[in-house]
Amino acid sequence: MGASTGQGYEIARKSREIVRKLISEDLASLRDEEAAIVERIVHSTADPEYARLTEFSQDFVDAALDSLRSSGEILTDIEMVRAGISRPASCHIRDPEVREIAKKRDITRAAASMEYAAERGFRGIVVIGNAPTALMKVIELTVEGIMDADAVIGVPVGFVGAAESKEALRKTDIPHMITRGPKGGTPVAVAAANALIALSGGVEV
Amino acid sequence: MGASTGQGYEIARKSREIVRKLISEDLASLRDEEAAIVERIVHSTADPEYARLTEFSQDFVDAALDSLRSSGEILTDIEMVRAGISRPASCHIRDPEVREIAKKRDITRAAASMEYAAERGFRGIVVIGNAPTALMKVIELTVEGIMDADAVIGVPVGFVGAAESKEALRKTDIPHMITRGPKGGTPVAVAAANALIALSGGVEV
Repeated sequence: MGASTGQGYEIARKSREIVRKLISEDLASLRDEEAAIVERIVHSTADPEYARLTEFSQDFVDAALDSLRSSGEILTDIEMVRAGISRPASCHIRDPEVREIAKKRDITRAAASMEYAAERGFRGIVVIGNAPTALMKVIELTVEGIMDADAVIGVPVGFVGAAESKEALRKTDIPHMITRGPKGGTPVAVAAANALIALSGGVEV
Repeated sequence: MGASTGQGYEIARKSREIVRKLISEDLASLRDEEAAIVERIVHSTADPEYARLTEFSQDFVDAALDSLRSSGEILTDIEMVRAGISRPASCHIRDPEVREIAKKRDITRAAASMEYAAERGFRGIVVIGNAPTALMKVIELTVEGIMDADAVIGVPVGFVGAAESKEALRKTDIPHMITRGPKGGTPVAVAAANALIALSGGVEV
């Protein structure tokens, strides 16, 4: 899991054993690929609760892997998520155009960055690790046919709006992964994206 | 908390209210600055457990604020942490020299990056959000007088080595903040660093 040395490899191996023991019951009902994603999330957060909170739409894994294998892009809501993903991804939150859109319409920069990506012809996987407002915007744009989201990792975090935005995603036909309730965040988003990237290349996660 | 719009501001305000209600008992025994840091961590993770897990050495807040106010640097273990911090910070994990050090001596790149920073005369706050091996190296280098760490935010995450590395930091004289046990991670590290940055400028966190 990202370690380049013997010591790092050994830590990852031991951690994987511990994680599997902690959440084996939760993994039993999942597809192999889904289990690999959940394992990586629990490894990254040291929080076994994510095995209960993480949910996939039935078509998520196939849609996400198809997207990655057909050169789909990866779009993130914030720079922290982009920085953690193991292949090039886009994040527009700091673009001056996005600041302008946000200011003009009094929406968050995270939400404005999704409009901006859609306008520029984005197609691929959207990874929302922080902002409920960005996830709500992705849902709106995708349902309206303005945004081409092949799959959405929707794991914004927070006590205001995050749970609601994930429930809204759950009710759509968009292939998705969520964490129920207020919890989620950048490590969850990054772990899920990197697990998919490894799976798409046939690499063991 | 980083929101630039009316909508973002309103979300942050409501979240703050909820966080304060959830953890008011845990905050009662803390200094105002410590309470502000813990609030921000719980806001960022939506995980009230951090109010119980977070611990400060008595000298941490003063040492960290003095460092920031006297142009101390900020050094992080991984890029995700650097990307989240609201003022310029350094991260050497991708430097070619660091890869070389790690390879030669079979230590992790995160640990090697701390040696590299110390060699280059780093002085300031070290923020470890991911790698226990990096934190162990910071302790070793600081105790030996090779590294000039004014304060350490030590919140690596994981089931192998993370708790131990934080207990090791706790036993030193280095001004520090930790989260006890396996939990911690990049959002905790970033929240703590950004809370200190806001406090150092007299800004309400």
